[in-house]
Amino acid sequence: MAPAVSPLALPLPEMPALAGSEAASVAAGIRYQNRRDMTVFRFAPGTAVAGVFTKNLCPGAPVQWCREILRAGRARALVVNAGNSNVFTGRHGREVCERSAAEAARLIGCKPREVFLASTGVIGERLNLDALLAALPGAMDAMSGDCWADAARAIMTTDTFPKAATRTARIGEATVTVNGIAKGSGMIAPDMATMLAFVATDARIPSALLQSLLAKGTAKTFNRVTVDSDTSTSDTVLLFATGQARHPRIPAEGGAALRDFARALDEVLHALALMVARDGEGAQKLITVNVTGAVSGKSAHRIAMSIANSPLVKTAVAGEDANWGRIVMAVGKAGEPADRDRLSVAVGGTWMARDGGVVEGYDEAPVVAHMKGREVEITVDIGLGRGSATVWTCDLTHGYIDINGAYRS
Amino acid sequence: MAPAVSPLALPLPEMPALAGSEAASVAAGIRYQNRRDMTVFRFAPGTAVAGVFTKNLCPGAPVQWCREILRAGRARALVVNAGNSNVFTGRHGREVCERSAAEAARLIGCKPREVFLASTGVIGERLNLDALLAALPGAMDAMSGDCWADAARAIMTTDTFPKAATRTARIGEATVTVNGIAKGSGMIAPDMATMLAFVATDARIPSALLQSLLAKGTAKTFNRVTVDSDTSTSDTVLLFATGQARHPRIPAEGGAALRDFARALDEVLHALALMVARDGEGAQKLITVNVTGAVSGKSAHRIAMSIANSPLVKTAVAGEDANWGRIVMAVGKAGEPADRDRLSVAVGGTWMARDGGVVEGYDEAPVVAHMKGREVEITVDIGLGRGSATVWTCDLTHGYIDINGAYRS
Repeated sequence: MAPAVSPLALPLPEMPALAGSEAASVAAGIRYQNRRDMTVFRFAPGTAVAGVFTKNLCPGAPVQWCREILRAGRARALVVNAGNSNVFTGRHGREVCERSAAEAARLIGCKPREVFLASTGVIGERLNLDALLAALPGAMDAMSGDCWADAARAIMTTDTFPKAATRTARIGEATVTVNGIAKGSGMIAPDMATMLAFVATDARIPSALLQSLLAKGTAKTFNRVTVDSDTSTSDTVLLFATGQARHPRIPAEGGAALRDFARALDEVLHALALMVARDGEGAQKLITVNVTGAVSGKSAHRIAMSIANSPLVKTAVAGEDANWGRIVMAVGKAGEPADRDRLSVAVGGTWMARDGGVVEGYDEAPVVAHMKGREVEITVDIGLGRGSATVWTCDLTHGYIDINGAYRS
Repeated sequence: MAPAVSPLALPLPEMPALAGSEAASVAAGIRYQNRRDMTVFRFAPGTAVAGVFTKNLCPGAPVQWCREILRAGRARALVVNAGNSNVFTGRHGREVCERSAAEAARLIGCKPREVFLASTGVIGERLNLDALLAALPGAMDAMSGDCWADAARAIMTTDTFPKAATRTARIGEATVTVNGIAKGSGMIAPDMATMLAFVATDARIPSALLQSLLAKGTAKTFNRVTVDSDTSTSDTVLLFATGQARHPRIPAEGGAALRDFARALDEVLHALALMVARDGEGAQKLITVNVTGAVSGKSAHRIAMSIANSPLVKTAVAGEDANWGRIVMAVGKAGEPADRDRLSVAVGGTWMARDGGVVEGYDEAPVVAHMKGREVEITVDIGLGRGSATVWTCDLTHGYIDINGAYRS
């Protein structure tokens, strides 16, 4: 039942080392055998941190831990394990967080509340704390700057390919690096497919500014990707800034000095988010949904998500059927302002419906060819205003049923 | 690819004739060949009518037509066709409604605005008005009181079994009948699986009261069933009261005189709604989701729908996996008040999790046995208040992908 690598997979890029960060990935045996399943990052003193987390109201213990310690804006370590999410584990779950942070802090020589934690895997089973603690010293001994590719692999669960991206940016005369890794083959799935992303830079950016950059960046990227509309209890994106690069001090208000850095960060987040959609469970096609002409950007986003989450739209794409009727249905069910007689729908750039009716005699050949491809683009013009949004998803296939209908057996 | 009959199908009951109503089902050839695809009901003068319709903001022309004429509260006929939904068909769609109502009215001798219309089938293709008009006279000649079973079959599209229910009720000393038929193998699917239900009674009930009874009844039944969260552009429930039964006049406020009638109506609506879930596309299991202990009934309903619409919960049920972690995830993503450490989850009556943690040593055997059955019951106690709700859905299987991923090809 193990799925082959997604046909939409991308190769792992060369990941440069990043001043002030090193990591090791080890086999802790928390759930998996014969594979690295725990990664520990160590950051230079003074590293600033920002984070965004799942909106699910029943989050895992590590998410609660990170939210609490994030307020201080400082990080010295990140401990990530795959195989057990430490979700819905009551007081024991909290204890796992406190004790693993304390032990990592002791080994590094920092405060426990500078140690960030992330876990993904099964829900409701106690995490093997002893195994985790026993693996920490070995990880500390194996720290290396050339760690990103191994880390991208070690955090995988149902992922079919490792996900990483890197960019450089100019701040003043200096060049800084932004490295990121992610896991997740759904936004979403609470068992093994939770989305985690860890991004680091050697730039020196105050944590308040970092938080603002990350919030804006995820709003345009990770929050615009959906696989099956389910919301994980563990979704976490963390951004670390080690401050080792030599560039002029960034003013508190950010401004022009950070423009190129924000571009690079957004590109890394965008690349990682799309890799998550490309590794959607059972995905055979990457779907881009563009909505224009809505009454606002927010309205456009909601309509686009309604289309991207519609099982009927997603199965139609899987069947290579440019079924614009289902797209219209999904616009209507979004509950946002829309007028049936002003709607226009294009697939792969060919307008099939305009102003509420089929375009008589439109050329079907390019639409059919487009639907056979790996990347499908749906564009809907609402015809009411200037709001627009783009979201990404994947098709809904037999593979999704295979993976999720036979997951624990 | 044609699916076999749903393993959850129920036999068609004996449907009695109903005073003041008769119908005929004929082969109009609107889309299908060699099957009856159009049904015309004729009602006695003085028949009152009530209706509820899809909340989709891009509804079909017949839905708009019915909404307009419903205000007068009078009906003499209902014309239903299968195979073409007359949705997203612009001005032509409106013309189809006006001309078919006018022709049916001419043949019957009533006003066009006493002729109700419903269409389901493909979206965005012009409905063959000539075929519909040509078939009307033959239908008028074939009218019969023994019409319900044929009608239940003729309105089917992707349904795998015909759906009908009948009950009797006492109003004063008189016995009245409530007959209903439905189609739909999703709440939902805009192509062929739109949900339509037509209910009639020989009771004499003013249209305002009838509307109130129907709104209350559908809120507890059809609005609590979901197959895939998609919302059809054509969903329609109509209730006709022919007024032929001899019972005391119903007071304008209804009250005790209507209590037994309301019970019978609710039972018919409930039976039909569950048949729709039982015929969910690809359904192998009927799922009942009970939520208790929410802060309000509305909150309980939203949480129950979040569970029932979760692809991960539905695929887990398909895989016979009592995956309470996914259930907790779905509670959390509903956005309603919930406290992880007060949640309890039962499957088939066995509490697997209580107060935010697994019930250590719970007996797995009855849970495993329950998951193997055709009817799966999930109960979640939120632990915060007294709000409760029950909704019904079905599992998400390869059959759903087969049906919806290869629909038009």
